[in-house]
Amino acid sequence: MSIKPILFENGTLKMIDQRLLPTQELWLEYHDYRSVAEAIKTMVVRGAPAIGVAAAFGAAFGARDIFADDFETFYPRFEEVCAHLAATRPTAVNLFWALDRMKETARTHRSLAPDRIAERLLLEAKAIAEEDDRLNRTMGRFGERFIPEGARILTHCNAGALATGGYGTALGVIRAAVEAGKKVAVFADETRPFLQGSRLTAWELMKDNIPVTLICDNMAGYLMSKGEIDCVIVGADRIAANGDTANKIGTYTVAVLAREHGLPFYVAAPLSTIDLAIPDGSAIPIEERDAREVTHSGERNLAPEGVVVRNPAFDVTPARLITAIITDKGVVQGHYAEGLRALFRKG
Amino acid sequence: MSIKPILFENGTLKMIDQRLLPTQELWLEYHDYRSVAEAIKTMVVRGAPAIGVAAAFGAAFGARDIFADDFETFYPRFEEVCAHLAATRPTAVNLFWALDRMKETARTHRSLAPDRIAERLLLEAKAIAEEDDRLNRTMGRFGERFIPEGARILTHCNAGALATGGYGTALGVIRAAVEAGKKVAVFADETRPFLQGSRLTAWELMKDNIPVTLICDNMAGYLMSKGEIDCVIVGADRIAANGDTANKIGTYTVAVLAREHGLPFYVAAPLSTIDLAIPDGSAIPIEERDAREVTHSGERNLAPEGVVVRNPAFDVTPARLITAIITDKGVVQGHYAEGLRALFRKG
Repeated sequence: MSIKPILFENGTLKMIDQRLLPTQELWLEYHDYRSVAEAIKTMVVRGAPAIGVAAAFGAAFGARDIFADDFETFYPRFEEVCAHLAATRPTAVNLFWALDRMKETARTHRSLAPDRIAERLLLEAKAIAEEDDRLNRTMGRFGERFIPEGARILTHCNAGALATGGYGTALGVIRAAVEAGKKVAVFADETRPFLQGSRLTAWELMKDNIPVTLICDNMAGYLMSKGEIDCVIVGADRIAANGDTANKIGTYTVAVLAREHGLPFYVAAPLSTIDLAIPDGSAIPIEERDAREVTHSGERNLAPEGVVVRNPAFDVTPARLITAIITDKGVVQGHYAEGLRALFRKG
Repeated sequence: MSIKPILFENGTLKMIDQRLLPTQELWLEYHDYRSVAEAIKTMVVRGAPAIGVAAAFGAAFGARDIFADDFETFYPRFEEVCAHLAATRPTAVNLFWALDRMKETARTHRSLAPDRIAERLLLEAKAIAEEDDRLNRTMGRFGERFIPEGARILTHCNAGALATGGYGTALGVIRAAVEAGKKVAVFADETRPFLQGSRLTAWELMKDNIPVTLICDNMAGYLMSKGEIDCVIVGADRIAANGDTANKIGTYTVAVLAREHGLPFYVAAPLSTIDLAIPDGSAIPIEERDAREVTHSGERNLAPEGVVVRNPAFDVTPARLITAIITDKGVVQGHYAEGLRALFRKG
C-alpha cells in the first residue's frame, strides 16, 4: 500500500513535507490558496501530477473564499486565484491542466450561485486526486509488460507515489511489475540538487519492500558499462506533441547513456502531462531555481561563498531517445506525433 | 599563483585538509608514514599526482624511522613502509609509481648507511614534488593550444593545483590558456559524492580569478544540448596502455555526452599516470568507497537509514571517446597504444 502524499480530510488539505523526508515525516495543513501556492513553489509538494492535485485543492480553497453574488463577479476573481497558483512553477504542465479543468468546471456550473460553484470545485479537486491514483494503476498495468523478470531498473528523480495522487507513474509501473509477481531490483539516481532519488524514491520503495540501491547521478553510466542495468524508466513533467519529454534535470543524460548501451528508455506519464499545444521540446519552459539548492545542504555550505551557479530544474529528452511512452490510455512506441494525438481521441 | 596543497618545511609535511575546503583552510602537519597513509585513505589529500607526492614524503618519513645498520636489514622494512602506503587507495597509479621510484632510489644508494639512504629518499620526495609542479606547467603549454579563445570549458572533479604538486593537470591547461591571454569560462561539475568540483575546483579557480560556474553533475548534458559548452578537459587517475582512462566517477558519462554533442574531450595527465603494464581499462581496479559519502552531508542524513548504496569512486573512459591525451612529454591524438609508448622513449 503505497503512500498518498496529499490528503483532504474534514476541510483540511494535508501534505507531507517532502523537503524533510526521509528524516522527518511531517504533515502540513492547508486552508487557503496562497499557502498552497507557496507549498508548490517551495517544493513541500513536487512531482508533476501531485502539483496538479495540490493546485486543484488550492483553487477550490480560493473559490470558497471569494465573496460574490453572481458568476460575473465570481469568475474573474477565480481566474486570479488560478493565475496565482499557476505562477508557482513553469515546467510541469499538469499544474496548468488541473487549473484549466477547474476553470472549466466553474464555467460549466455558471448558472449556480458562487458558493454552490465552490462546492462543485471541491468535488472536482477530489475527483482529480482520486482519478490520478486510479490512472496510475492503469498505466502500471500497461507498462509492466515492458519489465522483464529479474530486471535491474534505473530510475531518476521520484516519479512515485509521492509525485502523484498515489501509486506513482514510473514507480507505478515498477509496483505493477512486482504485483504481477516479477522480481525486480531498482537503482535510484540520488538526483541532485534536491535529492528526490535518495530522499523520496529510496524511502518509498523501502517502505514497499522493493529492493532499491542508491547511486549518485554520475554513477549510472558506470553501472551501464558494467552491464548492471537492464532498462530505464522515468516520469515526465511535460511531453510535447512530438514526444520530446521534459523531466527532472539529468533525465536527458540518462537517456543518452541508455542509447549508448542499447538499453530501453521508458517514460511513464498520464495524459494530463502531454501538451499537444507545444510542438516540440524546444518550446517547453525550463525553470531555473535558486543557487542555494546547489551550494548548500541544509545550513552547510558546500561551495565557495559567492560562486556563480546554474540550476536548471529540468531538461528535455528528445523523442528519438525514448523507446516508449506509457500512459493511462495506452502505450506509444515511436511515431509519437500521431500516436500521442490518437490517445486523446480514445476519450 | 596557484596554491600548493603539500608543503615540506623544517622537517614537517604540511597538507591542506581538502575535506574541509572551502569553508575552512586548515593545514595539518605530518611527521610519520602511518599518519600520511591515513591522510591519503581519508582524502585529506586526493588527486592522483598529489597522492604520489604525499606518499613519497610518507616513504621518506618511514625510511628515517627505520633502525638498521645495513641495507639488507633496512630494505625489507622500507618495503613494508611502502606496502602500507600503497594499500591506501587502489586506482590512481601515481601512488605506486612514486613508491616504486622511492624504492629504486633506496636500491641505487644501497652502498650508503641507512640514515644516509633516508636522507637521499627525502631529497627524492622533494624532487618528485618540485617536478610535478614543473611538469604540469609544461603540460599546460602543450595543452593550451587546444583551448580556443573564448572557450567555455567543462571540467569534472578537481584536476587542479590541489590535486597535484601545484598548478594542476586539466586546470593547468586552463591556467596556461589564461596566461597565453585567452578569455575562457569554466563550468565545474560539482562531482558527487565528495564534491571536489564545488569545494575545490570552484575555490581554486575563484582564487585565481578564472571565471567559473558551478553545476550539478546531471546538468552538463543540458548545457551541451543548449550549445553552452565548447570542450571538456579532465585529469586522470590511471591511463592504460591503449589509452583507456580511469578518472573520477562520472567522467565516462561526460565523455559519452561530449561525443553525442560533437565536442572534443581532452585528458591531461603526467607520464606517471600512464600504466603501460595494464593493457586496457578493464584491468584497472576501481575503488568502492564507504556508503556514508553518499548518504550523508556532514552529520546530515540525506537518505533512508539502512539504504543499500553503490559508491564506485572511479570509472573508465574508453580511448575511442578521447580526442587527445595531453602529457608533459607531448600530446597523443588517437593511435594511443603506439603514441603512449613513444612518449616513454622520449626520456
